[in-house]
Amino acid sequence: MSADLPVTFIDIATAVSRIEGHVHHTPVMRSHRLDDILKAKIAFKCENFQRIGAFKARGAHNAVLALDETAAERGVVTHSSGNHAAALSLAAATRGIPAFIVMPENAPQAKVDSVRRLGGQIEFCAPTITAREAAADAIAASRGATLVHPYDDPLVIAGQGTAALELLEEVGPLDAIVAPVGGGGLMSGTAVVARHMQPGIRIIATEPEQADDAFRSWKTGERTAGDPPNTIADGLRTTLGVNGFHILTVLLDDFVTVSEAAIVDAMRLVWEVMKIVIEPSAAVPVAALLEGKVDLKDARVGVILSGGNVDLDRLPWQ
Amino acid sequence: MSADLPVTFIDIATAVSRIEGHVHHTPVMRSHRLDDILKAKIAFKCENFQRIGAFKARGAHNAVLALDETAAERGVVTHSSGNHAAALSLAAATRGIPAFIVMPENAPQAKVDSVRRLGGQIEFCAPTITAREAAADAIAASRGATLVHPYDDPLVIAGQGTAALELLEEVGPLDAIVAPVGGGGLMSGTAVVARHMQPGIRIIATEPEQADDAFRSWKTGERTAGDPPNTIADGLRTTLGVNGFHILTVLLDDFVTVSEAAIVDAMRLVWEVMKIVIEPSAAVPVAALLEGKVDLKDARVGVILSGGNVDLDRLPWQ
Repeated sequence: MSADLPVTFIDIATAVSRIEGHVHHTPVMRSHRLDDILKAKIAFKCENFQRIGAFKARGAHNAVLALDETAAERGVVTHSSGNHAAALSLAAATRGIPAFIVMPENAPQAKVDSVRRLGGQIEFCAPTITAREAAADAIAASRGATLVHPYDDPLVIAGQGTAALELLEEVGPLDAIVAPVGGGGLMSGTAVVARHMQPGIRIIATEPEQADDAFRSWKTGERTAGDPPNTIADGLRTTLGVNGFHILTVLLDDFVTVSEAAIVDAMRLVWEVMKIVIEPSAAVPVAALLEGKVDLKDARVGVILSGGNVDLDRLPWQ
Repeated sequence: MSADLPVTFIDIATAVSRIEGHVHHTPVMRSHRLDDILKAKIAFKCENFQRIGAFKARGAHNAVLALDETAAERGVVTHSSGNHAAALSLAAATRGIPAFIVMPENAPQAKVDSVRRLGGQIEFCAPTITAREAAADAIAASRGATLVHPYDDPLVIAGQGTAALELLEEVGPLDAIVAPVGGGGLMSGTAVVARHMQPGIRIIATEPEQADDAFRSWKTGERTAGDPPNTIADGLRTTLGVNGFHILTVLLDDFVTVSEAAIVDAMRLVWEVMKIVIEPSAAVPVAALLEGKVDLKDARVGVILSGGNVDLDRLPWQ
């Protein structure tokens, strides 16, 4: 079945070797109190502790380290709402090559600062997918830089899948694995790994109701941009990519959307109980459990906490 | 030298066996970025991930589990600004005995809720040491409950020392170890363990300038209550105990006080960079490094992050 997919388990296993030593093997955390509240036995894969504060470090390193010397010298370029931008800047700096970053004007300041600190060269654009892609294409054309798409590049998807691989290796059999969907890179990589390593596992995607393009695409079988996203989960405002759509259509067991209120409650709950900082996007799978939108009572559930980059001056519950 | 002290390394080693399985062996975290900012190689012992969100779970369990059956049946009583109260409630619940908790009226709501959830029976009193002690003594007299002093009970001090023991076992040789001082339980236990395991280590206490009774006691050689404490670090508003004073007088190498602004900056810095939630008291040792008040350039430093119980609706930088 998965032989036809744009990313295979072999690609992800290769990514593990390629990025080893460059990204963190993040911890898995558990909380009895959260298990009581969410009524499941949850293993949280803490990508908020990943380099640059999000899983995106994985995919970016895989893409940058896979470049041949000639291509690498000309640098890399991308458009991103933030975490991928920081990740690509870091990966490029590691290899000593330039990273050109197209960011929307409304990107959170914390993410802009992060890219600058890591040496990325920022070009701002209008906060639309079209404007971002045009600006990135222009830089790729003029500089010969390699475009590293933030979520639909197969190397990026393979890199993101390494988080779930580590999780499943560490915790053993799970009944379900849950992750958030923005452009689909993390969810696709997670799905490919999970289906290969534990064929019977339930693979569940989660998305904000107010940015539910991927859910609608999956439901209808036709990739759609949907309404303009309007969610606090800034990492999930992107549209599902072509490769992500393909993979998720084949591999997903279920897809759950959650309210903005549940995202805020879930985020706060994780901070309060687990004493870790997660960003709104990372709270989306937790929100699905909190809202009881998916039947996982007493199940062993793996949750990918995607990142922890928030603006501490603008917390959503205040 | 340490044979005369009210708590010895043997007491702490005994506490390790006694509390094993009842409290968490917390992780040690490192951050290259924080090392760059603070100019030292820091191993953070994350007691914010401890049960009830603070190191206090250690001392309370050690004291409760050491009681004989007859004493245990009558329950335990204490006065506390919060974390010890939750810790004693939990330890008592573990053993199936009652915990009577005297708390100041101005205790943070998060800490009150935590005690109630854990089954502690709360009696509120005026927010002074005198009022707290009187109320706790009255309950001890009327019920025959054992008073477990929040920081000066030798069993509590021994329990708190187990955090540093785990840290030193895990990370090996350090140049210095730094912890905060409130009543002195954590700092005393830390000092006893550190001097025994690594005789040449620098043992450094830290305290808010605006609650510097322990610093002044150490400096003058005379235990003093000092001015009324007025610090954001609510866990450190207590006065240094008799046993703590004795131990710190003998074992400390240095004592540093920090400003309120530095505490807030340090707290925020740890949240931002490490993606973990720590309370203001836990930020005090980090503030000492941030303010450069102690010469630890390029040194290997162990820092005890004492807890993570904060009111998320009232963050100090907002």
